[in-house]
Amino acid sequence: MKYSIFGTGVVGQTIGSKLIANGHEVMMGSRSASNEKGMQWVNNSAGKGKLGTFSDAAKFSDIIFNCVKGEMSLEVMKLAGEPNLKGKLIIDISNPLDFSKGMPPSLTVCNTDSVGEQIQRNYPDSFVVKTLNTTNCQVMVNPSLVAGEHDLFLSGNDPESKEKVRTILQREFGWKNIIDLGDITTARGVEMLLPIWVRLYGALKTPNFNFHIAK
Amino acid sequence: MKYSIFGTGVVGQTIGSKLIANGHEVMMGSRSASNEKGMQWVNNSAGKGKLGTFSDAAKFSDIIFNCVKGEMSLEVMKLAGEPNLKGKLIIDISNPLDFSKGMPPSLTVCNTDSVGEQIQRNYPDSFVVKTLNTTNCQVMVNPSLVAGEHDLFLSGNDPESKEKVRTILQREFGWKNIIDLGDITTARGVEMLLPIWVRLYGALKTPNFNFHIAK
Repeated sequence: MKYSIFGTGVVGQTIGSKLIANGHEVMMGSRSASNEKGMQWVNNSAGKGKLGTFSDAAKFSDIIFNCVKGEMSLEVMKLAGEPNLKGKLIIDISNPLDFSKGMPPSLTVCNTDSVGEQIQRNYPDSFVVKTLNTTNCQVMVNPSLVAGEHDLFLSGNDPESKEKVRTILQREFGWKNIIDLGDITTARGVEMLLPIWVRLYGALKTPNFNFHIAK
Repeated sequence: MKYSIFGTGVVGQTIGSKLIANGHEVMMGSRSASNEKGMQWVNNSAGKGKLGTFSDAAKFSDIIFNCVKGEMSLEVMKLAGEPNLKGKLIIDISNPLDFSKGMPPSLTVCNTDSVGEQIQRNYPDSFVVKTLNTTNCQVMVNPSLVAGEHDLFLSGNDPESKEKVRTILQREFGWKNIIDLGDITTARGVEMLLPIWVRLYGALKTPNFNFHIAK
C-alpha cells in the first residue's frame, strides 16, 4: 500500500520506517522536498522511501499520517492544499504542546476545541481520525514495549474511517485494544491527556508506558 | 480518627459512609448546619456522623476531604475560614466541570492552573493533596469494583502530607497502586483527565472503570 506522512521529525520517521519495514511505499512530506532530516530518512530506506513537499505527499496516497506539531497542523494542511486532501483519510497524531512558557508544556488549544477538530472543521471533505497521540512513538509502532493490557483511542466523525484506522493499527503496528470514543470532539479528551503524560514521564523515568482503561 | 468532609453530595456521602463504616468519627460540612441531604446522611449514620457548617467541619478534624464542586471550592474554603484551615491536610477530590454550556462538560479552569493549585495558593499554610478525582465515587472507596491493576495519582507540595494520604487511601479504601506525580501543579494533569473520563463513561456505558498506567 501507499502511505503519506506529514512531518520529518522522530514521530514521522518512526511511523514511516515501520510502514516501509512492512513492505509499503511511503512518502514523507515537508516544507521543502530537500529537507535534511527527510533526505537522511530516504537514504536509509533502501530505496522504498520518498520525500516531497506537503502537497506532493498529499497527492501520493489516500491515507495521510499527520506527524507535525499541533500548532503547525493547520498551516501544513494549507500547504498540502485542500484539493489534495479531499476525500483523504487524515490520521492525526499531533499534540498541541506549547513549550514557549517553559516546562512543563501547556497546550495551545484545549477544553472547548482540539487540533483534531480544527483540521476536520477546516477540511470538511477529509476524514480526520485522531489516534496514537497518547503514547510515545516507539510504543506507537511496537506496543509490546509496554507490558500487559494497554489501550489506544479513536476519535472521528466517520465510522468507516475509524474502522480503516483500527485495521491499520492492528495490522501494521500490532495494536490489540482500541477504544472508539466517539466523534471528533472526543479528540479534546485525548489531547488533554498530554499534561499528565508529561508528568508521568517525569515520575516513571521512562517514556515507554501507556494508558489502560481497567474495567 | 476524626475526618471532615466538605460537601453533602454523593461523593461526600460515599466517602463519609465508608469512613464511618471503618469506625471513624466524621463531620460533614455544608453552608447550613441543617442541610437536608446532610441531615439524612446523619440520620442514617447510627449516631456516628455529624453535620455542621463548613467552619464547624474545618475545626472538627485535621484532615478534610474537599468533595464540593471545583468551581465552588474557593468560596467554600473562605466560608470554612483561613484560621480553621491552617496546618490542615486538605484532600482535594473536586473537579472543575462546567455543564453550563451543555454536554459534554468543559472545565472551568485548566491547562495553566487547576483547582488544586488555586486552593494551595490561597491557603499557603494548609497542605493540599489532590487525589481520587479521576474515578467514580463508588470506585474511590471500593477499588475492587474495577478488575485488575489500576491506579490513583497524588499531587501535592508536601511529601509528608502525600504519605499521609497514601496511607489513608490504602488503609481506609484498599488502594494498592498510587503514583506520586509531583507537586501541586501536577493537579492540572489529573483534572484534565475528566474530559476523556466523561467520554469513556459514554463509550463503556459504566462509571466503574479506572485509569491504569501500563509499563
